[in-house]
Amino acid sequence: MSEQDMLFDESGKLSQSAQINRCKDSPSSWKILIVDDEDGVHTITKLALNRTQFDGKGLTFFSAYNVAQAKEILSSEDDIAVVLLDVVMETEEAGLAVAEYIRDVQDNHLVRIILRTGQPGTIPEKDIIEQYDINDYREKTELTKRKLHSTVYTAIRSYRDISALENHKLGLEKVIAATANILKHKSVGSFAQGVLEQVSSLLYMKDGTMLSEIEGGLVEKNIDDVQVLAQIGDIATPAFKASISQDNLDVAPGSDQALYYQEDNICHISNTNGVETILNITGKHQFKDVDINLIAMFCNNMAIALDNLRLNDSLRNTQKEIVYAICGLAESRSKETGNHVRRVAYYSRLMAEELGLSPAQCEEIFYAAPLHDIGKISIPDYILNKPDKLNDEERAIMKKHTTVGENCLKGSHQPVMQAGAIIASQHHECWNGLGYPRGLSGTDIHIYGRIVALADVFDALASRRCYKEPWSKKEVVTYIHEHSGEKFDPQLVDIFERRQADFYRILQEYDDSQSYMPAV
Amino acid sequence: MSEQDMLFDESGKLSQSAQINRCKDSPSSWKILIVDDEDGVHTITKLALNRTQFDGKGLTFFSAYNVAQAKEILSSEDDIAVVLLDVVMETEEAGLAVAEYIRDVQDNHLVRIILRTGQPGTIPEKDIIEQYDINDYREKTELTKRKLHSTVYTAIRSYRDISALENHKLGLEKVIAATANILKHKSVGSFAQGVLEQVSSLLYMKDGTMLSEIEGGLVEKNIDDVQVLAQIGDIATPAFKASISQDNLDVAPGSDQALYYQEDNICHISNTNGVETILNITGKHQFKDVDINLIAMFCNNMAIALDNLRLNDSLRNTQKEIVYAICGLAESRSKETGNHVRRVAYYSRLMAEELGLSPAQCEEIFYAAPLHDIGKISIPDYILNKPDKLNDEERAIMKKHTTVGENCLKGSHQPVMQAGAIIASQHHECWNGLGYPRGLSGTDIHIYGRIVALADVFDALASRRCYKEPWSKKEVVTYIHEHSGEKFDPQLVDIFERRQADFYRILQEYDDSQSYMPAV
Repeated sequence: MSEQDMLFDESGKLSQSAQINRCKDSPSSWKILIVDDEDGVHTITKLALNRTQFDGKGLTFFSAYNVAQAKEILSSEDDIAVVLLDVVMETEEAGLAVAEYIRDVQDNHLVRIILRTGQPGTIPEKDIIEQYDINDYREKTELTKRKLHSTVYTAIRSYRDISALENHKLGLEKVIAATANILKHKSVGSFAQGVLEQVSSLLYMKDGTMLSEIEGGLVEKNIDDVQVLAQIGDIATPAFKASISQDNLDVAPGSDQALYYQEDNICHISNTNGVETILNITGKHQFKDVDINLIAMFCNNMAIALDNLRLNDSLRNTQKEIVYAICGLAESRSKETGNHVRRVAYYSRLMAEELGLSPAQCEEIFYAAPLHDIGKISIPDYILNKPDKLNDEERAIMKKHTTVGENCLKGSHQPVMQAGAIIASQHHECWNGLGYPRGLSGTDIHIYGRIVALADVFDALASRRCYKEPWSKKEVVTYIHEHSGEKFDPQLVDIFERRQADFYRILQEYDDSQSYMPAV
Repeated sequence: MSEQDMLFDESGKLSQSAQINRCKDSPSSWKILIVDDEDGVHTITKLALNRTQFDGKGLTFFSAYNVAQAKEILSSEDDIAVVLLDVVMETEEAGLAVAEYIRDVQDNHLVRIILRTGQPGTIPEKDIIEQYDINDYREKTELTKRKLHSTVYTAIRSYRDISALENHKLGLEKVIAATANILKHKSVGSFAQGVLEQVSSLLYMKDGTMLSEIEGGLVEKNIDDVQVLAQIGDIATPAFKASISQDNLDVAPGSDQALYYQEDNICHISNTNGVETILNITGKHQFKDVDINLIAMFCNNMAIALDNLRLNDSLRNTQKEIVYAICGLAESRSKETGNHVRRVAYYSRLMAEELGLSPAQCEEIFYAAPLHDIGKISIPDYILNKPDKLNDEERAIMKKHTTVGENCLKGSHQPVMQAGAIIASQHHECWNGLGYPRGLSGTDIHIYGRIVALADVFDALASRRCYKEPWSKKEVVTYIHEHSGEKFDPQLVDIFERRQADFYRILQEYDDSQSYMPAV
């Protein structure tokens, strides 16, 4: 199948191949419901249509002799193609009641209804035709074997065409819902998992989502790197490996997407901003009822949305790394280590999560905590690096790093910077009110300030500085415990004690062996 | 109309109201094509169907007497509902050729084809029914006036239903394409304009995009602020004002969206993360053929995508503002002004644009340029602030701010930080090779380095510092001109001279009256 057939077509026209695929999952025979109170009519109808075939499939007959039986069968069989419906049965208009039930109660507008009358009822043909949503009106006498065949045959054809349109419509609605669904994901990881779920549900449209029926994944490929964004089951299949090495697969010149389809494998490649995204899914059984155009439309939206999400991730990382780099450099003036600010970010987020702050708040403190000492940039060297104890005047200047930092950040409306201003201003306040610059106490200190105060002190005690060895774990824990309710918020000390191991894991993970120290 | 009817329904079922709306724009009569070589058949058919009405509309007849005429009419009238088709005309199978033309050449699967035979042709009925995609096969003799009415009436009904399904399918495909279209926009402004275009094309589905036919806009509403993201024509209409003040409009509890529809006004309100987005469109004439569900689906995707874009904008602004704040603070140590870094960003982007760099590069230099002096954080106060001339040793230390900045930033893979590393390292290189730290010359200096070198010097000369008055415009221009090909890239000097006025506009727009200077 050439890739030309496969590409997303803006006009939305179904390609020939897609039409063929779509009909693959039709029922194994066409269901015909005969509703008539005369047994002979059932027999003769079946006999007449005995050999009728459409699209290579024969007919299956269901028989009802009154309204109740007809309703019962219609309720249990939801894919009846044609109803051959007698009008006069237990009442003069029994058949019309069945027609009404189908269209109005069942809301079924797919099944084709052929009225057959033995004797004209009380209502004239014209009124019946106009008042009831039926598709044909015949007298039993005119329906020879040949005519019955023609009538039923064209009715099945109509049923097939309308069903296909209806299915396609449902598929399109599913693509729209699937797009809305994946757009809600805010990170590449959960987005990618969402994509697999939605593709799976598009591939097995009639069965609903059956993730267990597929294996494969979504992969991002840079020049020198292949990264699996999400996967299900085995992605070491030959089809998957081939799609990644791109044997025989390529995006046509002038296009940034291609879609390849076989009966049990689907592969979409998109190329945006130099990053290639490959979706490769293999069905454990053949895909059912696949409309390749639906998949193409979904994948097109997916590729654009993923591109937006990547931009988002990149902005977030840039923000984080700029802050780490600059604040690390700033800390180095006062002989702190460059990774101190990074570690404080992680300790702080850990405490925020443990406290049950909202995900947005946890993210906010994570990005803002490294800014806590930014005001030190303006503190003169002679104070910052004085080997002896600071005198009162010097100490007063030193303490100003809190308000300088606050003033530097508070002018912005961005939440991260507002949080940074709070943290810069309050990370030296103490629970008992004896801290600076404002002498706030207890919950008058913002929770961000209380958290960073503990994180900052923990890191200073537990890490090596050029002027001191790290304290022992016991010494650190004792110090923090002893200052609970004095320097520190007691509930944060509780959290620290409960999650000690994680604090030390962060300390090791972001140790200073890799951090840059300026050579000045 | 209650808002319950209007809301986006995940199952995608059309609401009753939507179905009614959708059919509003059906043709004013049903077109029937009679193809027959006997004039009498035309006359009698028209006579028989004279009074037939469906959905309150009568029939319009077209007459063809041979295959060529039939094809001609079919080509010029694309919304024929039913063809009454004689089989034997100029040839034994002329009618079948018309049927084939309709389905295979015109690819028209909507029109209902009723074959009418006067005499049996050479092909048996069974074969015709099975080989040709026709919908009914009748002998002329059996078609009494009553039967003809029934047959044509049910055929028109089928045509209406299939057309409606087909229209709905096209509408859904349009929603998907419209979603893909707006997802491609990377800024809130162009996204909002794209939304208006797409809504307009959904509202006037059959006419294509007719922006001139609507007025209204997309508005963002915070607690204290209403911001117009995009608008067309007059948005001071009563409907628009009402939607913004939200008289009688509200989002139901538990939902974050609502959609209100009248015949010439549509209003969608969504509420995400505390920001309300209001889309209000009024048609200059009544909207045609509006399927409110399609609009709801599109608006749903739009609201989510806009939310993502806002996050994106917020990340970008945070990054920019953090850099301005911190780098401004850092510059203040060496008595530069806080807004210097901001202005350097704008001058640099101006030059990059004028040079024809890509939008991505223009953005990159805009965000990275403020980082140029970041290495100065590590330069000791006594050098940075020495009132006298620096001695050789001191000057050597001072020059290290370039490589310190480079090393601080180059560890990151983020493009903005890599650009920042280049700029920090090269903004004191000179075109003639006499700069530092590496003595690079000409185009060996990265274009970012050359650009920021000029921007940095221009701002230093043209702005007031605590230790100097601004140079006069003439002095500045002369200095830069005289150093073309020495300090500066000559093509950048050309750009500066061409865009002088814009450089001075930036200087004034971001002057230092508002910038924060620390009180230490």
